[in-house]
Parts: sequence; structure tokens; C-alpha cells
Amino acid sequence: MTASEVLPRVLDRIDNDLDASLDRLFALLRIQSVSTDPAYARHCQAAAEHVAADLRGLGFEATVRPTEGHPVVIGKSGNGQSNGHAPRVLFYGHYDVQPVDPLELWKTPPFEPRIETLDDGRKIIVARGACDDKGQAMTFVEACRAFKAVTGTLPLDITMMIEGEEECGSKSLFGFVRDNAAELKRDLALVCDTGMWDAQTPSITTSLRGLVYEEVRLTCADRDLHSGLFGGAARNSIHVLADILSAMHRPDGSVAIPGFYDGVRELPADIKADLEGLGLTPEKFLGPIGLKVPAGEKGRLLIEQISTRPTAEVNGILGGYVGEGAKTVIPGKAMAKVSFRLVGAQDPEKIRAAFRDFVRARVPADCSVEFGNFSSAPAFDVAFDNPALTKARAALAEEWGKKAVTVGAGGSIPIVGDFKSVLGMDTLMVGFALDDDRVHSPNEKYDLRCFHKGIRSWARILAALAG
Amino acid sequence: MTASEVLPRVLDRIDNDLDASLDRLFALLRIQSVSTDPAYARHCQAAAEHVAADLRGLGFEATVRPTEGHPVVIGKSGNGQSNGHAPRVLFYGHYDVQPVDPLELWKTPPFEPRIETLDDGRKIIVARGACDDKGQAMTFVEACRAFKAVTGTLPLDITMMIEGEEECGSKSLFGFVRDNAAELKRDLALVCDTGMWDAQTPSITTSLRGLVYEEVRLTCADRDLHSGLFGGAARNSIHVLADILSAMHRPDGSVAIPGFYDGVRELPADIKADLEGLGLTPEKFLGPIGLKVPAGEKGRLLIEQISTRPTAEVNGILGGYVGEGAKTVIPGKAMAKVSFRLVGAQDPEKIRAAFRDFVRARVPADCSVEFGNFSSAPAFDVAFDNPALTKARAALAEEWGKKAVTVGAGGSIPIVGDFKSVLGMDTLMVGFALDDDRVHSPNEKYDLRCFHKGIRSWARILAALAG
Repeated sequence: MTASEVLPRVLDRIDNDLDASLDRLFALLRIQSVSTDPAYARHCQAAAEHVAADLRGLGFEATVRPTEGHPVVIGKSGNGQSNGHAPRVLFYGHYDVQPVDPLELWKTPPFEPRIETLDDGRKIIVARGACDDKGQAMTFVEACRAFKAVTGTLPLDITMMIEGEEECGSKSLFGFVRDNAAELKRDLALVCDTGMWDAQTPSITTSLRGLVYEEVRLTCADRDLHSGLFGGAARNSIHVLADILSAMHRPDGSVAIPGFYDGVRELPADIKADLEGLGLTPEKFLGPIGLKVPAGEKGRLLIEQISTRPTAEVNGILGGYVGEGAKTVIPGKAMAKVSFRLVGAQDPEKIRAAFRDFVRARVPADCSVEFGNFSSAPAFDVAFDNPALTKARAALAEEWGKKAVTVGAGGSIPIVGDFKSVLGMDTLMVGFALDDDRVHSPNEKYDLRCFHKGIRSWARILAALAG
Repeated sequence: MTASEVLPRVLDRIDNDLDASLDRLFALLRIQSVSTDPAYARHCQAAAEHVAADLRGLGFEATVRPTEGHPVVIGKSGNGQSNGHAPRVLFYGHYDVQPVDPLELWKTPPFEPRIETLDDGRKIIVARGACDDKGQAMTFVEACRAFKAVTGTLPLDITMMIEGEEECGSKSLFGFVRDNAAELKRDLALVCDTGMWDAQTPSITTSLRGLVYEEVRLTCADRDLHSGLFGGAARNSIHVLADILSAMHRPDGSVAIPGFYDGVRELPADIKADLEGLGLTPEKFLGPIGLKVPAGEKGRLLIEQISTRPTAEVNGILGGYVGEGAKTVIPGKAMAKVSFRLVGAQDPEKIRAAFRDFVRARVPADCSVEFGNFSSAPAFDVAFDNPALTKARAALAEEWGKKAVTVGAGGSIPIVGDFKSVLGMDTLMVGFALDDDRVHSPNEKYDLRCFHKGIRSWARILAALAG
């Protein structure tokens, strides 16, 4: 069987095996692997063992590895040696799920998976974890299973890492990856925990914004002052803070901190055209939250603003009297929390230092400022000419009959940053979630079509990467 | 006895009667007339009756007038008819005192008045109320007593109004004044509840700043947003609020709200020179509160900034996440409390409207703002060429051997505003408190010299007003 003969057979096998694939997914969905609640610890252990056993059935050498929290399942299809041209991949997913409350809002019990047919004819899988991430992770496992059934082997060297603490911050995973770096380092990471652009348009997430989070604590007078006695002469800490925060943005919406845009890259023209073609309008994006007017950098697409451009946001502010009624105080202290979303090669520590300099330069000589540092993570992105990305885009276009878009995610997925910084590899994030999947909410669902075509998508991607 | 023969005899009488004056003050100080605590209500009643009885002994027709709170003592020396040239005066003071806690910090019991001699030779009266306001009010009563003893009468028509709720907001007094306006309306009000510039320099408070107090409640998105998903496109309510508050002052420290300075008057050159001569430096005024740099309008004396210039102050601000650690939220709502100290003829309602227009003009089209109104009082001031003021200044200069300064008080004394707006009369505020009197604190004191020369000062002022 030549390589070109394999894929059609694998896809056929996936189609014919769909009912059995669903049964296997349902078995996993029945396990109540809620990771945040210690009462469900044994269910998490059971889910890990269930996944490991399934992987062993596919020929993986699979182990349940203990951590200080819930275990990590590691499965290896081979010896981790390169076969020459195909990349060795590390697939990451998670077997844990969000809590189910409020339980009374579920139409049927969350751990009794079922198929429902919607009025528009769509069939959906309903259960906690149907999408996030059991359903999504199983699209990859089922693609592997189809290859194994058709060819007796996998098309490339695959290491699986399925963790159990994603829904509570992946507390143990960062240390686990560091401690087992040599064992986990491969050529490319694959993640199935993201969404499609819409039900027709496949998507690869190629960048994640980084984060710097600071707290600014300002002290002017050494006590709160009576505004009648001192008003007009004494510095007001809120005025100083408001001036600083207001100065942080220019009238055109850009960030005024010197050096802030160092390392920010412009999108290639073709990628920008693709994004523009998606037609994300302020009405569509801001309407649901009660807004109309984009507030960011002028002259940028809204989709750029939220994914591939850096931001500065004040997340909280407190000073003076904030109770009921009036109190004529000039506050001695005021505080703000300020965070920055980073992109491209922006350096978190340089941004932090530049912000602190920007603040200090605006604090009057007789006032003082202290800073708190809560978070620091660089942005992550895959080069648009990465060969694996090109192959994966083509494979997705084949399956869905529509060009796959590359998008940036506005938020962080910290472990993907560690794959880059600790294991030195890029990550392709491919997922089949839809906006209406009610992830983290009652009646979570995953479209049956997404599950089915998701399996087929991974089969095509694996074939393309191996080819 | 001619008028010019009377005053020396009255002053002699005051000197010779000082010990008896002290005995009478001590009797009043022994009454535990704490007005905020209902447990002391009978002591407040007792203090009112004590004062009324004392006034009757001086020939006043005195009554204890019930209110919803503690009673008001009203005493009338005559029929309230003008005798032609001398002004009829209304004297205002209060018999209630602040609570005494923390009691353990008092060196001797707060309601057992005593004379203490300090290391520098100063004699002080120590007790709760020694200064505020029993000691100060009694300087006026004792001046009346000396006139009565020497001449058998008072030099002009005097109405006394001694209230019992000043330390808890004068809740009943505003209605009492309105309800009895015809009975209380005189030509001039006198108040003894303020301080000297310093131990050598007598002072008349000729202006009080007014107040407008607003709350600004801003809404942008209809919920708090994830800064990763929405950051860069969604309006941040704190940014909008910080921009507005920052725009409220110009770089020169002046207030940028259109029309804000309408009605603000410049000080006459001689008065300004007097104030400058007082030498109030930033070191003296700001040093004790940990500051060094005056923060108000550039090009103004510090003493102007705090007394005769209007201000805008943010008294409180709250928005977004202000707990421990980090939360990457873009807050939908933010709130600030903003107040204005007014001077001269600034119109509170015009200032309020101008501020609201200023804010609304800076709120983006898809955001909204609501306002709360907590206070509105115009400024009060006495014209610098008021004849009674001129006479009182001269009388004080005679007694203290030093020019009496006219100062503005930065805060409000609401009842003085009502004397103007309801009763149509000006108020001269003359008092003999010193900065180290520990008013409202443990071990409150009043310098015996202030008490003694305070009585003499009032005698001179009454003679001057009558002349």
C-alpha cells in the first residue's frame, strides 16, 4: 500500500467506525473527572487509567504518571527517534473537566452522555467534557486508531501527554514538563483544545498573546486628609494615578510607554487579507457585550486588535472613600492593577521595566510608588512559513472544502509557552469547538459533525506531516 | 459714665473676676454633654438648663427649646429692636462635646476640669470641651457678665443661640433656624468656635468654602470582560474615567471645567499682603503630613490655595478587580466621587451642571454615565470693607498688640451659610483656639491666657460695635 492509498482507506475506516468511536467517547465522558474538587480525585485517577489503557490498545507504551495533583498520562508510539523526514510529535490534551454546577440547569445528567438532534437537524453530543477536552482529544486518538487498523502502525512517531489539571491551572504540569524535558522533547507539539472560526471554516491558532501583570501602589500624604483643610495644596494620590493611567494611551489608542512596540511584527499581507476576509465587524463582536465603538488602536482591523496587537489595560483601581454617600477626603494612597497583553518578540521584562520607569517619571518628588509583579509570560507564535503549518492548513482545507484560517488567540495558554521555552518546539493548535458549545457551562455539547470531521482532519494532518 | 470710661472698667472687672469666671466654666465642663451617644441625653439637657440659668442671671430672657434632638438654648437681652446705630447681634455657640474615648489616653478624667502648668510656664485648662466649645462660648458670656456688672446692662441687643448637636452634625438646628427665622434674624452673627493664627496673632475667619459633591457612575460593557479575549477592542471603563479625571486639571493646577472660575474674586492687595506676611510655607504646612511640594494652582500663595481658591478633588475611585493577586478583567463599570470647594460667588448648581457636561462630553457614544448628588452649599464670605469687621479687627489689635488677620477657612460650617441665606446676615467668626488644643482628642485643653484675653477681646469687640 503506497502512502497515497493509505489515507482514503483511513478516512473510510473513520466513517465506518464512527458509532464505535462514539461509544468509546461516551465511556470516557461517563467518568466524573472534575479536577478542582478533591472529592472527585478517584474519578480523575480512573480517567487517567482509562486513557492509558485505551492508548495501550493502540500500541502505545502508556503509563499513568503521578504528580502532586492528578496524574499525567504519557503514551509513546515508538522510541522517540526521528525516522528522517517526518516530525516526531507531542500531542497534548486533558482528561479533566469543569465542575457541573449549577446542576439544575442541565437538561439531563452531565455524566450521562447522549446524542440530541436539534431543530435545524444538527446532531450534538451532550455531556460535561463532550467538547472540552475529552471530545476534542478523542478526535486525535480515533485518527490514530484508524491508522493502526488500516496500516498496523502510526504514520509518525507520536508521544501523547494527557493531563488532569488543565481546568485548575495545570499546577503540576509545568514542573512535570521541566523534570521530563528529555523524554518529552519532540519536533512539534499538537494541541486539540481550540475552536473553529465558524461551523464551516477550519482554523489553526498560530499565536497566543503573552502577559505582564503589575500592581501600582502610590503613596502621597502619609494619611487621608480633610479636603477642606488641605484641598488646594496637598497632592491627591488619585489625581496622580489618573494622570499616569490616562497618559498610558495616546489619542490614537496606541500605548505611549517608550519601547512598548519593540518586537511587535506586522502581519504578512496575505495573512492580513485572510483575516480581513473573515469580516469580523464591531457589531458582531462588540454588540453582544453592549458596545459599538472599537476602542483600540486606530487604523487596525478589529481582529488584529484582539489577537495580534499588544494591549495595556487597567484591570482594577481603588483609592479614597468608596462607600455610600459623601466623605470629603483627599486620599493618601491609591492603587491600580495594570496588565499588558504581549505579541511577537515583546520582552516581558523589558515591558515591565519600561512601565515602571513610565510610572516613576510621573510620580511627584514627595510621593512614592511600589510595584507588585503577578505575572510574566512572553507571547507565542508560529512562523507563517513553518512547513508543518503549511501542511496542516492544506490538510484542513481538503477536509472542510474551505481555506483554513490562521488566527491569534488573545489570551494565554501557558503550557504552549513552555513547549517553546522549555522543550524548544512549536505548537500547532487545531480544534473543532464552536462558539455555541457551552464550554464550562451547563449542557456542554460538541457537534457530532465536528467530532467526525475532526477525526478525519487529524488523519489528513498526520498523513500530510508524514508525507 | 461715658462710653470711653466704660471699657477700661469692664476690662478691669474681667481681670479681677477671672477666678470666678474659671469656676463657672468648670461647672459647665463637669456636665457630660456628649451629644452623639444617646446614653448622655440627660447630661445634654442638664447642660442646656445650666446655660439658660446662667443667662437668666445676666438678665437674658432665656429658654430651653426642645428639638427632635438635644435642645437649643435661646437667650434675649432685649426686645430685638434696633437702637438706631448699634447692630443687633446673634451669638452662636454649642454646649455639646465630642465623646471622650479612648478614655485610657486621658491623664485625668475628662469631666474633671483642672489647671495644669506646662514646662514653658503656660497655664492650661484641661477637660473635654475646655476649648470646643464650652471654653470659647464662655469667653463671650463672661464679657457680657462684665458689662452687666459695670454698667447694669449690655452695650447692644444680644440674642444667644447655644445648641447641643454641633458635634453630631447640627441635625436639628437647620430646621430650628428656618422655623424661628423672624425671632432669630438680627443684623450680625458672632461665632466663637474658630482659632487664632498662632498664640500671638488674633484672627477673624471671614470666609468659608462651599461644597459640591458628586458621584460619577460609568458603564461601558454590560459585564466584566476577559482582557485576553476582548483586550484591544472593548472600551475599558477605568480608562474612560481616568481620562476624564485627568482632564479635570490643567498642567498649571487650575481646574479645566468651563466656567469653573465664574464668581471667583481676587483678594484685595492689602489682604493678600497680610496673608503673605504670615509666611505659611510648604515646609510648615505640608511637612507634618509627609509632603513637600504644593500641588494646587501655580502662582498662588499656599494660604490662598487652601482658603480663598476653589478646588476639585477626587475623593474616591473604584473599578474592576481590587483584591489580592491578579485578575485579567476589563471592567464594565467604574465609579468616582468628586467634590468641589467653592469660593466667592461660585454657583453650586452651575458648577454641578458644568461638571456633568464636562464628563458627558468625554463619555464614548456606546457608554453611559449616571450621577449622584450628595451635597451643595455655596461659599460664604464677609466683604473686607464690612464696618463690623473693621471694628472687630481694630478691637482685637488693641487687645493682642498685633494686627488681626482675616483668613478663609477651607472647609464649610453649614450653619453660617444658613445665617446668610435664611436670616440674611453676615457672620464674624472670632475664636481663640490654638493648633495644639487637641480638640476632639484626649487631654483637650484651652490656654488660660486665651480664655482670659478672649473674654477681654469680646468686651472690646462689643464696645466697638456699640460705639
